[in-house]
Amino acid sequence: MNPTPLWKRAVAEFVGTGLLVTVVVGSGIAAQRLSPDDTGLQLLENSIATALGLAVLIVVFQTVSGSHFNPLVSLADRSLGAELDAAAILTYLASQLLGGIGGAVLADVMFDTRTTIADTDRISAGHLLGEVVATAGLILLIFALARTNRVAIIGPAVGAYIGAAYWFTSSTSFANPAVTIGRVFSDTFAGIAPLSALAFVAAQLVGAAFGVGLVLVFFPTTRKVPA
Amino acid sequence: MNPTPLWKRAVAEFVGTGLLVTVVVGSGIAAQRLSPDDTGLQLLENSIATALGLAVLIVVFQTVSGSHFNPLVSLADRSLGAELDAAAILTYLASQLLGGIGGAVLADVMFDTRTTIADTDRISAGHLLGEVVATAGLILLIFALARTNRVAIIGPAVGAYIGAAYWFTSSTSFANPAVTIGRVFSDTFAGIAPLSALAFVAAQLVGAAFGVGLVLVFFPTTRKVPA
Amino acid sequence: MNPTPLWKRAVAEFVGTGLLVTVVVGSGIAAQRLSPDDTGLQLLENSIATALGLAVLIVVFQTVSGSHFNPLVSLADRSLGAELDAAAILTYLASQLLGGIGGAVLADVMFDTRTTIADTDRISAGHLLGEVVATAGLILLIFALARTNRVAIIGPAVGAYIGAAYWFTSSTSFANPAVTIGRVFSDTFAGIAPLSALAFVAAQLVGAAFGVGLVLVFFPTTRKVPA
Amino acid sequence: MNPTPLWKRAVAEFVGTGLLVTVVVGSGIAAQRLSPDDTGLQLLENSIATALGLAVLIVVFQTVSGSHFNPLVSLADRSLGAELDAAAILTYLASQLLGGIGGAVLADVMFDTRTTIADTDRISAGHLLGEVVATAGLILLIFALARTNRVAIIGPAVGAYIGAAYWFTSSTSFANPAVTIGRVFSDTFAGIAPLSALAFVAAQLVGAAFGVGLVLVFFPTTRKVPA
Repeated sequence: MNPTPLWKRAVAEFVGTGLLVTVVVGSGIAAQRLSPDDTGLQLLENSIATALGLAVLIVVFQTVSGSHFNPLVSLADRSLGAELDAAAILTYLASQLLGGIGGAVLADVMFDTRTTIADTDRISAGHLLGEVVATAGLILLIFALARTNRVAIIGPAVGAYIGAAYWFTSSTSFANPAVTIGRVFSDTFAGIAPLSALAFVAAQLVGAAFGVGLVLVFFPTTRKVPA
Repeated sequence: MNPTPLWKRAVAEFVGTGLLVTVVVGSGIAAQRLSPDDTGLQLLENSIATALGLAVLIVVFQTVSGSHFNPLVSLADRSLGAELDAAAILTYLASQLLGGIGGAVLADVMFDTRTTIADTDRISAGHLLGEVVATAGLILLIFALARTNRVAIIGPAVGAYIGAAYWFTSSTSFANPAVTIGRVFSDTFAGIAPLSALAFVAAQLVGAAFGVGLVLVFFPTTRKVPA
Repeated sequence: MNPTPLWKRAVAEFVGTGLLVTVVVGSGIAAQRLSPDDTGLQLLENSIATALGLAVLIVVFQTVSGSHFNPLVSLADRSLGAELDAAAILTYLASQLLGGIGGAVLADVMFDTRTTIADTDRISAGHLLGEVVATAGLILLIFALARTNRVAIIGPAVGAYIGAAYWFTSSTSFANPAVTIGRVFSDTFAGIAPLSALAFVAAQLVGAAFGVGLVLVFFPTTRKVPA
Repeated sequence: MNPTPLWKRAVAEFVGTGLLVTVVVGSGIAAQRLSPDDTGLQLLENSIATALGLAVLIVVFQTVSGSHFNPLVSLADRSLGAELDAAAILTYLASQLLGGIGGAVLADVMFDTRTTIADTDRISAGHLLGEVVATAGLILLIFALARTNRVAIIGPAVGAYIGAAYWFTSSTSFANPAVTIGRVFSDTFAGIAPLSALAFVAAQLVGAAFGVGLVLVFFPTTRKVPA
């Protein structure tokens, strides 16, 4: 059992999810301002910063809260047999959602941008399929490593995955309801309109369920990797 | 012996090869759309996404199927003494080919692109030599690590290798018949015309044979690396 | 206790901090000259070079001096219970400051640039908040890893963190008084005017204090990570 | 003692140095052709490909020949007490030089470029100082890791170092006589005129001597790193 008290794990999830959204939104604002002429270059800058920042955040809080930073990771963890009880799950989810919003506001303040609700419409069939794929892959990756004694590389692996998924999914891979909702609160490069956010979260739920299924097929039991 | 049942390893090869092609084709489409003015920037975006995505895919499925994702890796594995029997080899190859095509179609759907046969002609003497070099290097790399007890770093090493080979070979380093054939099914940045695909696969076969020769010279037996 | 004599550790801090500033300033000059048309591309080049160079420098000197390269890391180390006595602290700080200035001059000489005091004004509320956030995160990261037996990954983790923080903080994350003062001595891409440097250092002090607080909350004692 | 026969180590140094130059020159040609409008973007593409490719090449041949790929590394190794006798040294140097030239020719052939002597003049006081700094840092890095039981990370660390040094030294960090001479044989992005090559090699020799001195100061004996 995780010996860290729940309140401390909740703060870790709040800070970690918050800074993750700060990285996503803040680097998006910087990219948009500094490279105004090429959207691809903006996404390259945004994706590299996100990959590096996410890897580091996971590493920092991993021994404290498990570095979920994502309601679907917490829910998948529980559905796959983790020790989180209902109170812990609710605490994690609330911390992640509040963190996500707080992180967007922090980015807005640092970049002298007024916090307003984003109006970037991102709904399309291709984008929703993108969120399903991105979230399924994320869940599969995390639990593949957790169930084969490779927890130590989850940080860089998840960072690398998201860095790639910004490009190979058409939706730029939100794959995280807390980050999606946080990104509603910044009408900038990384922003998303509320209605699109809802649709994205629904697609992410489908993807997470699919991901849990893949975990059960490929990694039904925890087993050792041959060294 | 790998304790995973063959059908599960086949699914892993199907999904892994499929997502590899999704990464290659999808990030190529995104790069082409978002950075229309500079082909080099497109290739930079495409190569970074591929390097990161490929490393992650190998890590995910390594304990399931060995993460070949490439008919030539399966064939080299067998010719170098692995336990794969003829039925397993055929199963792997079929899974990889179907996965490669499926991955291209998935990318097309996510990006709202109609799947059509590519007509990008890529045949030239320099490109075919590029495929020989790229494939020989890939085979040498994988088995150098496998034969010196460094399986744990094959994922990031192969990702890094392909990320570099997109640039240092003139052909942008397909180095994989399943990926090559998959890329026939998307008439986009990463696409390749059927005739060019055939010539590329032939060059890859030559490169793989050459790579196996290098493995036999440099790593004739499995031995421990001094710690 | 570190068995290396203090003078040798001082030289390591001087050389390490110096080369860190050479990396920051030198790659900034190169980026500005070679990519004159896009400030974002300049920052991308600058941030990638800094991330890689910083990771390497930490790795090189880690067994000699601990690779602080930053007065706030030395001060935090002491406030968190390290063995550095007052004489060692002062020696470290002096070496870092002299190194920072020397590194800027070296970059200027390599790039045939006359060393003059920078006049880039960087003061704004958002930027100062950026420095608080960047420094708090840096201190938290370093001591999170040091207190959970993961010293071996501090180099790449800190490099990745700074690479991301160039983008997600509005101030481009100086997060280091020695580097800040060093950057006063090059009126180029990475330069900073003296008054701004003072304000940045003040904000960094606040951030470091905040970071030490976070360390005490999340990592109150040194403990083993489960393997 | 290295149990691999000398002829096999010679082939490894030939192939490894050759492919290193192929990576440098080939990715330089690709960058120049695909990103004609921004020299900085060309260098970014060239530096990322080189960092990844160099890391992989070191990893591949490390257990065979030690992956020197650089006459100055072989000479420093011997001057620091390695077991290489005079015949082995001469064999390594000859293999590296021939490999360097062969690698440039291979890149030229792959990219359908006629091999001609480069006429890019690169001599300046700043550039020569750049080569001194780059080579000293390279030697220090390699032997710092070798002397503290961290041989396993030399590959990625050297790749990262060169990736940064392309930017922070004004000379774009050749730091290797075999690579420098190889680059004479391709009149493309990475080429260098013969007279400049001579001056660069002289500066590299000075840097290597300086680097060996730093190794002797900071890492006088081989000792264990605390885990």
